[in-house]
Amino acid sequence: MRVLSGIQPTGRFHWGNYFGAIRQYIDLQDNEQAFYFIANYHALTTIDRPGAKRQGEIFDAAALRQLTNDAALDLLALGLKPEQATLFRQSDVPEVTELTWLLMTVTQMHLLEKCHAYKDKKDKGLAADAGLFTYPVLMAADILIYDSDLVPVGVDQVQHIEVTRDLAQRFNKIFGDVLTLPKEKLVESTARVPGLDGEKMSKSYGNTIEIFWPEKKVRKKIMSIKTDSTPVEEPKNPDNCLVFDLFKLFTTPGQQEELAARYRAGGMGYGDAKQALFEAAMSYFGPARQRREELEADPERVEAILQNGAAKARTKARSVLNRVRDVAGLPAIP
Amino acid sequence: MRVLSGIQPTGRFHWGNYFGAIRQYIDLQDNEQAFYFIANYHALTTIDRPGAKRQGEIFDAAALRQLTNDAALDLLALGLKPEQATLFRQSDVPEVTELTWLLMTVTQMHLLEKCHAYKDKKDKGLAADAGLFTYPVLMAADILIYDSDLVPVGVDQVQHIEVTRDLAQRFNKIFGDVLTLPKEKLVESTARVPGLDGEKMSKSYGNTIEIFWPEKKVRKKIMSIKTDSTPVEEPKNPDNCLVFDLFKLFTTPGQQEELAARYRAGGMGYGDAKQALFEAAMSYFGPARQRREELEADPERVEAILQNGAAKARTKARSVLNRVRDVAGLPAIP
Repeated sequence: MRVLSGIQPTGRFHWGNYFGAIRQYIDLQDNEQAFYFIANYHALTTIDRPGAKRQGEIFDAAALRQLTNDAALDLLALGLKPEQATLFRQSDVPEVTELTWLLMTVTQMHLLEKCHAYKDKKDKGLAADAGLFTYPVLMAADILIYDSDLVPVGVDQVQHIEVTRDLAQRFNKIFGDVLTLPKEKLVESTARVPGLDGEKMSKSYGNTIEIFWPEKKVRKKIMSIKTDSTPVEEPKNPDNCLVFDLFKLFTTPGQQEELAARYRAGGMGYGDAKQALFEAAMSYFGPARQRREELEADPERVEAILQNGAAKARTKARSVLNRVRDVAGLPAIP
Repeated sequence: MRVLSGIQPTGRFHWGNYFGAIRQYIDLQDNEQAFYFIANYHALTTIDRPGAKRQGEIFDAAALRQLTNDAALDLLALGLKPEQATLFRQSDVPEVTELTWLLMTVTQMHLLEKCHAYKDKKDKGLAADAGLFTYPVLMAADILIYDSDLVPVGVDQVQHIEVTRDLAQRFNKIFGDVLTLPKEKLVESTARVPGLDGEKMSKSYGNTIEIFWPEKKVRKKIMSIKTDSTPVEEPKNPDNCLVFDLFKLFTTPGQQEELAARYRAGGMGYGDAKQALFEAAMSYFGPARQRREELEADPERVEAILQNGAAKARTKARSVLNRVRDVAGLPAIP
């Protein structure tokens, strides 16, 4: 059984990303054949393009290179085991763009017109480019080129898997039965992760804490969380406190009960609670932070992991693409 | 100076194709670097897809394979010199599909919405697929991936070169100045080629004579041309006769004057004029028909020519694509 996950290299991971999705994605590596790719082709569509937010700004190639590398380091640091899972850059298997074209020839326009990202942009009266319009086809190719059986997704991405199945079915009908239909695996966030302002933690709200920020910055951000003005000596309610909510992400029920008791007893200021949160977070991500430093100091090792992953993925991609080429009347891959 | 021509493998060439375009295209091989490719990726869009005319029909992979091979044989037979020009199958340089994706990310939707093939189909109320909608982007990639300077086109294809320049300019502006802007070379039909019914010779009118039909079939079709009922002994007007119009395609002014005199003198039936046309056509295409038979008998040689061409084209394509990858923040081609 092949499980496939694509990770957009759009920015550094924060606590919300981790508990909301990445942790669950990484856990899937225990499947026989888990493929993880860093979606650097997708990063070129206007939505995620480095520098694209400011109109007319020139694309920042160095930023994309850095983000791509960071995504690899982050995933490896957070527990992705390259001896078990296959990690690669999307652009190291360029065959996926050929399958994209072949799928394009069976993609009905109305299918793409109803896809969220394009529709949202169009509804806002913004000019979309064909990359945004057709990226669901690239996404389908990402999945289909590895004969993927299972694709972990969030609720908002179920549509992509539906489109992928639609395209595969249509292709199989017109050209011959060569594409494997994937299923989605809904990854439900097991924890609600609030941001520094109490809203859902999200890059677009500017309320995140990144996993690999320097210790000092993490501490400063935690210390800046707004709490109510209950005096130190008074009892406090852990069930109505952002600091406590975040503390729960990193701790056992026993540890939580202990801190909750200190809240309720009075005599503890929010500063102490914040310090407890900081220590819990540092302890939780400590091994990952340590691994990341080691990886960062050894770029050759990381590059070797990515090349190895690409070689494995590419072998599979080429075999599927040759099946597709055959039924499409194209000679085998040169 | 690089000249690029793409030939659609959609059917066997007829006299109209030859005198209208192919002859002029082949003449361009005298340029230093002429590239000719057989557009088998394009042949997968609904417009040209073997079997696509009848709705729901399964794609005919064998037909596309045959048509692709026929296009190569026809071009070589008609005078394309592989030691001078570079002839290859589009799908033997799959890098072009990667450039297609990269260009897609800078392609504004309105540019594609106004392109003829899509617009025509949509205006007729027919369902278009994304392959038809986006094929101008593949066409742009076809041109740009070889740093093409000049692209011979018919009047109806000038739009494609305009789109290609638009995309190249936009890509250069956003990502960096790496794509060469091509110019079109308008190929004007030097001869009007009427079909068997007097209308313009065109596959869609079913009035064609194919260059490589068996002699017997060519003869039969010529003999079936409708002429007026002027009796044999009466004088006839060569300037108002389809047979004479076709005769002019293959002959010198001297030969034409000679036959015209026989028309005007009377005593010559149309059967004789048709026989003269048949002999002129056979004599004109004789060497090409001979070469084609030899090529057909030696598929290894043809395959070697195509592989050689692909190797040359691919070297160029990879160098351009690496320039593009670099400014797009993607690692070099693996």
